[in-house]
Amino acid sequence: MAMSLQHVLEARRRIQGFIHTTPVMQSLHLNERTGSDLFFKCEHLQKTGAFKARGAANAVFALSDEKAKTGVATHSSGNHGAALARAAQLRGIPAWIVVPENALSSKKAAIRHYGAEIIECASTLDARESSLAALVKDKQCQVVPPYDDALVIAGQGTAGLELTEQVDHLDCIVAPVGGGGLLAGCVLAADGKIAVYGAEPAGADDAYRSFQAGVRVDSHKPTTIADGLRTVLGVSNFEIIQSSVKDILLVSEDEIIDAMALLWTRLKQVVEPSSAVTLAAVLRNPDVFRGKRVGLMLTGGNVDIGDLPF
Amino acid sequence: MAMSLQHVLEARRRIQGFIHTTPVMQSLHLNERTGSDLFFKCEHLQKTGAFKARGAANAVFALSDEKAKTGVATHSSGNHGAALARAAQLRGIPAWIVVPENALSSKKAAIRHYGAEIIECASTLDARESSLAALVKDKQCQVVPPYDDALVIAGQGTAGLELTEQVDHLDCIVAPVGGGGLLAGCVLAADGKIAVYGAEPAGADDAYRSFQAGVRVDSHKPTTIADGLRTVLGVSNFEIIQSSVKDILLVSEDEIIDAMALLWTRLKQVVEPSSAVTLAAVLRNPDVFRGKRVGLMLTGGNVDIGDLPF
Repeated sequence: MAMSLQHVLEARRRIQGFIHTTPVMQSLHLNERTGSDLFFKCEHLQKTGAFKARGAANAVFALSDEKAKTGVATHSSGNHGAALARAAQLRGIPAWIVVPENALSSKKAAIRHYGAEIIECASTLDARESSLAALVKDKQCQVVPPYDDALVIAGQGTAGLELTEQVDHLDCIVAPVGGGGLLAGCVLAADGKIAVYGAEPAGADDAYRSFQAGVRVDSHKPTTIADGLRTVLGVSNFEIIQSSVKDILLVSEDEIIDAMALLWTRLKQVVEPSSAVTLAAVLRNPDVFRGKRVGLMLTGGNVDIGDLPF
Repeated sequence: MAMSLQHVLEARRRIQGFIHTTPVMQSLHLNERTGSDLFFKCEHLQKTGAFKARGAANAVFALSDEKAKTGVATHSSGNHGAALARAAQLRGIPAWIVVPENALSSKKAAIRHYGAEIIECASTLDARESSLAALVKDKQCQVVPPYDDALVIAGQGTAGLELTEQVDHLDCIVAPVGGGGLLAGCVLAADGKIAVYGAEPAGADDAYRSFQAGVRVDSHKPTTIADGLRTVLGVSNFEIIQSSVKDILLVSEDEIIDAMALLWTRLKQVVEPSSAVTLAAVLRNPDVFRGKRVGLMLTGGNVDIGDLPF
């Protein structure tokens, strides 16, 4: 069954007791600079510090009691892991998170804070997947994928849904694309009424290349500071994105860091590099967004403040 | 005439078209850690990135047209300077700001952004005052002092007034004390109904010593990262603080930096060191605040993100 706005509305009913309705912020300076009306959706103020709390909660609370009782597992560079750990803790079931050894210490600390067990592995997709498979065989638990999953996509879409309700007459929404959970969810939430753009680091441009070619790129070697966007675009995510996203816009590493600095100094918000690709895309493409009312997803705020790129 | 809540209410009527009503934030983690219900008043999200926008606007818009036309001047390490520059720009009059040579570049940039002229001087109080006196003689302009002024105190108090309206049944308010404008303003806003505490760096403890001795300390050699709190307590500020503040709590430099890191990582807010002394004071004095509903002033968010203490 094709996914639609209906799935996002169901997700919202399921998770609304477990997540924050995050605020929307504006900056006069950034509006003047871009010639646009920019509305920043503050998912870095979401529980666990990222929008991932939404999709994980939707997946965990959709499980039957029978399936839930043996617990849940995933592999994650951080934000999805903390989100799944929290959702499992709320439901009172165990959680195991496979984490690449180069994950940020702040993200690992968050996973432990919510009572999940961390299993470290090498930082390749192969190592992550084989570690997870071994774990699931051992524990007989349910896998909650980070993005390539209908329940996760619908859950992430609730961020977009909220934004469309908080801001009247949006012309477009810009969301980062890594695995594509949030971007696909925003497409569903926009329901064909608002243009949706993806923003992606040029150093991890698998979604861009997939979108241009019409065929999903299924592996790549990302090099980007945006640690949340190093994953490969998911299969179901690609289908939704390919059919309905207006465009995918690439940004350089310097543009990401400059946009991140603007978000810190102008909005006064601690956001991670992945959050900054949307503003970077708007700054790089003024002609696309000038005069428009633009919703930008700030996806997360989990950074090691002792190790910043400024 | 003694100052009262009435002056704060007048200030609010005068400035409300020119300032933001800033949000109040909470953190479950920080509540659990302190055993208190903490309400952070986000003045770092105020226009100019600091509460100083309030007092400066009140002083500038209270001037008669006759007095206003020759412009305004002050000396400031940064936030009051930007605030006065903005207020003057809004009123359409010139502004000159005497700035110590060691002021943060981010704060000087903000002053220039609002169209004021910067006059640099040595970083002593004497140099600041003599530079300002020479300027005023030359330009025949009005001085708007950074804190020792009834209109400025009343303006800063509007931040406390908003907080009492946004949060029901506050038990206490904690505000940083440098020159004492915000702390004195909060005393007026609290109107004897809410306990008001000052929080001060131990390395700039003139208000603490003044409060303990009952006699204002009129000079000191501050050594603190909290650049907004290096000034000496004002005369009128001391009178209000001495009569009605419950206590002044000292914090160490390490405690300020630790609290600042918590505000960055837990609230995800970019705040300057001066903003962190209030949380540092609550963390250092758990017995004073346990079980209480505590309003904490986050005073500003103007930091050089390339030069952080983490």
